[in-house]
Amino acid sequence: MKTSIDLLTSKAKQAALKLAETSTSVKNKALRAMAAGLVRRQKEILSANAKDLAAARKAGISGALLDRLTLNPKRITEMAQGLRELAALPDPVGGVIARWKRPNGLTISKVRVPIGVIGIVYEARPNVTADCAGLCLKSGNAVILRGGSEAIHSNRAIFQVLDSEARKSGLPAGAVQLVWSTDRKSVDELLEAVGWVDLVIPRGGEGLIRTVVEKAKVPVIKQYQGICHTFVDASANLKMAEAISFNAKVQRPGVCNAMETLLVHRAAAKRFLPSMARRYRAAGVELRGDAETRKILKGTPVKAASQKDWDTEYLDLILSIRVVKSLDEALEHIRRHGSHHSEAIVTRSKKNAEQFLNGIDAACLYWNASTRFTDGGQFGLGAEIGVSTDKLHARGPMGLEELTTYQYRITGSGQVRR
Amino acid sequence: MKTSIDLLTSKAKQAALKLAETSTSVKNKALRAMAAGLVRRQKEILSANAKDLAAARKAGISGALLDRLTLNPKRITEMAQGLRELAALPDPVGGVIARWKRPNGLTISKVRVPIGVIGIVYEARPNVTADCAGLCLKSGNAVILRGGSEAIHSNRAIFQVLDSEARKSGLPAGAVQLVWSTDRKSVDELLEAVGWVDLVIPRGGEGLIRTVVEKAKVPVIKQYQGICHTFVDASANLKMAEAISFNAKVQRPGVCNAMETLLVHRAAAKRFLPSMARRYRAAGVELRGDAETRKILKGTPVKAASQKDWDTEYLDLILSIRVVKSLDEALEHIRRHGSHHSEAIVTRSKKNAEQFLNGIDAACLYWNASTRFTDGGQFGLGAEIGVSTDKLHARGPMGLEELTTYQYRITGSGQVRR
Repeated sequence: MKTSIDLLTSKAKQAALKLAETSTSVKNKALRAMAAGLVRRQKEILSANAKDLAAARKAGISGALLDRLTLNPKRITEMAQGLRELAALPDPVGGVIARWKRPNGLTISKVRVPIGVIGIVYEARPNVTADCAGLCLKSGNAVILRGGSEAIHSNRAIFQVLDSEARKSGLPAGAVQLVWSTDRKSVDELLEAVGWVDLVIPRGGEGLIRTVVEKAKVPVIKQYQGICHTFVDASANLKMAEAISFNAKVQRPGVCNAMETLLVHRAAAKRFLPSMARRYRAAGVELRGDAETRKILKGTPVKAASQKDWDTEYLDLILSIRVVKSLDEALEHIRRHGSHHSEAIVTRSKKNAEQFLNGIDAACLYWNASTRFTDGGQFGLGAEIGVSTDKLHARGPMGLEELTTYQYRITGSGQVRR
Repeated sequence: MKTSIDLLTSKAKQAALKLAETSTSVKNKALRAMAAGLVRRQKEILSANAKDLAAARKAGISGALLDRLTLNPKRITEMAQGLRELAALPDPVGGVIARWKRPNGLTISKVRVPIGVIGIVYEARPNVTADCAGLCLKSGNAVILRGGSEAIHSNRAIFQVLDSEARKSGLPAGAVQLVWSTDRKSVDELLEAVGWVDLVIPRGGEGLIRTVVEKAKVPVIKQYQGICHTFVDASANLKMAEAISFNAKVQRPGVCNAMETLLVHRAAAKRFLPSMARRYRAAGVELRGDAETRKILKGTPVKAASQKDWDTEYLDLILSIRVVKSLDEALEHIRRHGSHHSEAIVTRSKKNAEQFLNGIDAACLYWNASTRFTDGGQFGLGAEIGVSTDKLHARGPMGLEELTTYQYRITGSGQVRR
C-alpha cells in the first residue's frame, strides 16, 4: 500500500473531478457510513492506537501530548458524532453567492464550487484524521492526509475504515487518502505539488506551521499564533468586563482564542483591577504587569512584565496586564503586538466600539463579549477545519463554505462582444 | 526622492491603517482631483512620455510594444475618465456580507475591509499606474506601484500628479507610492516584504508573472494564460454557434479571453465547419485542425494541428480546431489543455450545459455566449484590476470587492463561553 506522492495526488485530482459532481445525498450517506464504521471497528482502531501509545511511552512522551494521542471508546464515539453532524449540515457546493443580469441579457451567477485537492498536514491528534476527512468530503474536496509519525498506526486504522466505507457508499476511489509513509520527504513533495494540490492546511504548533509555510509552493491557509487582547474601556460596565476578562483567560487557557494580555483604561483601572486580580489569583493565574498595574495592585503578587511578555502566547494560566491612557494607546498596543486573530473591547460607548472595530486588522473583533467565541461551532458554522489569520480567501473560523471557492457561470442567448 | 523598499512599505502600512477609516466622500474627492490633475498637467506627462518613447526607439522597440508605451491627450483623458468612473462606483468597504444572531444573543457580522498594502508589478503600459492606483484607493488599500523601466519617466510624471492630488484631497501620505528605482533588486525586496505587503498583483506577460510567483514570499493573485475553448455541441443552434465562435476568436485576438481552440461535436461538424471556416478565412484567420477537421474542410487551407497547438495561447489570428465524438471527450480535452480561465459551450440541451458547467474547473463558464465577456466592465464590476485563474480568494474578473477581504465583528451583551 506504499504509494508515492505523485500517485496520490493524481488519484486525488481524478477523485476531485468526480466529487465535484457527487450529489449531497451520496456524500451524506458516505459520512454516516464512515461514522458507523468507526464505531463498529473500534477494536482495530484501539489496538492500533495502543501501538502508538506504547511507542510514545517508550520515547518518554507524557502529559498533554500523550493525552492528545490517546483514543478510547468515548473519543471514537465523538469522532463518529462529528461525521454525523457534518452529514446533517447543508451542502455548500452549488450555492449561488450572487446572480445578476446584464443589459445585454447575459445572466451571471457566482456559484460555490469545491477547491479541489486539499492536503492536511497535522501532528499527534488522530481525531483530526476523521474530522478533516469529513469536512473536505462534505465540501466536495478530495483530501490527502499527512499526520504525525507518533500517531501513524492510529491514523492508518482510522483511514482504512473511512476509505472503505467511502468507496462502499459510492464516493470515488482516492477521495480520502493517507500518506502511508512517515518519511519527511513525503511532506516536502506534497507541499511542492503545484497543479495537483490546490491548498494545504497545516494543523499543529507554530513550528510545524512555519515549516510548512517556508517549504510550500502550493497555497497555504494558516494561523501562527493567537495573542488576543481584551481592552476594558473607561466607560465599560465593570461587572461585565470582569466576567469577560475572566472567561477569556481562564475558561480554557491552552487554546488560540484565549486572552494573553489585558489592557485597562487608566480611568477604570483603580476601580477594576483589584477585584479582577483577586479573582485571577483565586483561579491560579500568574499576573505580570506594567509599572502602573503593579502600583495599583500593590500587595498582590504581580511580576514586572518585560517587553517579551507583550509578544508571548502563554497558552497557560499567565496574564500580562497594562494600563493605557487612552483608546488610541490600546489600539497602538494591539496593532504592535496582536496576531490578527481575535481582539475585544468592553465599553458602553458606541463611538469607541466603532473606532476599535474599524481600527484593528484582525479576523474577529468583539464588542462586549469574550474572545473565546472564535470557533466554528460557536459561530454556528457547524464544524471547523481551522482558524485563519490570513486575509486572502478565508479569515477566522473556517467551516464548509470556507472550503469552497466560486466560479462564474454565464448564460446567454448568443451574446457576442462588440 | 529615492527611497528604499523598507521605507516605502512601512509608510504604506501606516497609510493603510488610515485609509481603512477614510470616508467614501474623501476617497471620491481624491479620485476626481486626481482625474482633473492628469488632464491639467498633461504637458508634463506627455513630455516625460516623449523621453520614454525616444529611449524605446533607440533601443529598437517598435510595433505593439511601442504603441502600449505611447500616451497622447486622448489616452490621458481616458485615464482621467477611468478615475471618475471609480469615484462614481459604490464603496465596497464596510459592506456587510452576512449577519446572523446566535442563540446566546451574540450578533456576528461578516464585514468587508480593505486587504491592506497591495503591490502592483507591471510592464510597459503607463495607464496601469493610474488605473491600479484608483482601484486600490477606492477599495481602501495603500498601493505600491512598480512599473517597467521602459515607462519610468511616464510613470513618475503620472505618479507625481496622483500623489500630490491625493494628499491635497486628504488621503494619508503614502497611500499611493511608486518605486522610484528601476533596479530589479527593488522588485525582489517588494516580493519578500512579508508582514508589510499583503498582496502582489503582477500585470503583464507570462514571463513576468512566472518570475513574480517564483520569487514572491507574499501572497500573489495572478493569471498565467488564457487558453479558452468553445465547444459546439451536437444540438447547438449553428447560427448562434457561428456568431459566438467568430466573436471569441476574431473580435480581439490578442487578449486572454479570446478563444484558442474550437471543439466541435462530430454530429454537428459537417454542417457547421465549412461555412464557419469560410468566415474565418475571410477574416484572415489561420486554421490548424485535427485529421477529421481537415477531412471535412478539404479544399480549405488547414494546417495539421500538432500536440503543441492544443497547449498554445496564440494571442493572434490563429485557431486550432478539433472534432470530438462526445461531450465527455470535449470535457476531457478542456481539462487537459485548458488554463482555468474561460470556457464556453453552445448547446440547446440544458442537461449538456449543466454537465459542462459542473464538470470544468475554470473561473468563468459560458452557456451560449462568447468567452470575450470575461472582463470586469462586461461583468458590471465597473473596473478591473485583473483576471484571476487562482482559486483562493478571488477568481475571474477582479473589481473593487475583490480588492477587499472580510472581518468578523461580534457584538454581545457580556456573553462568556461555557
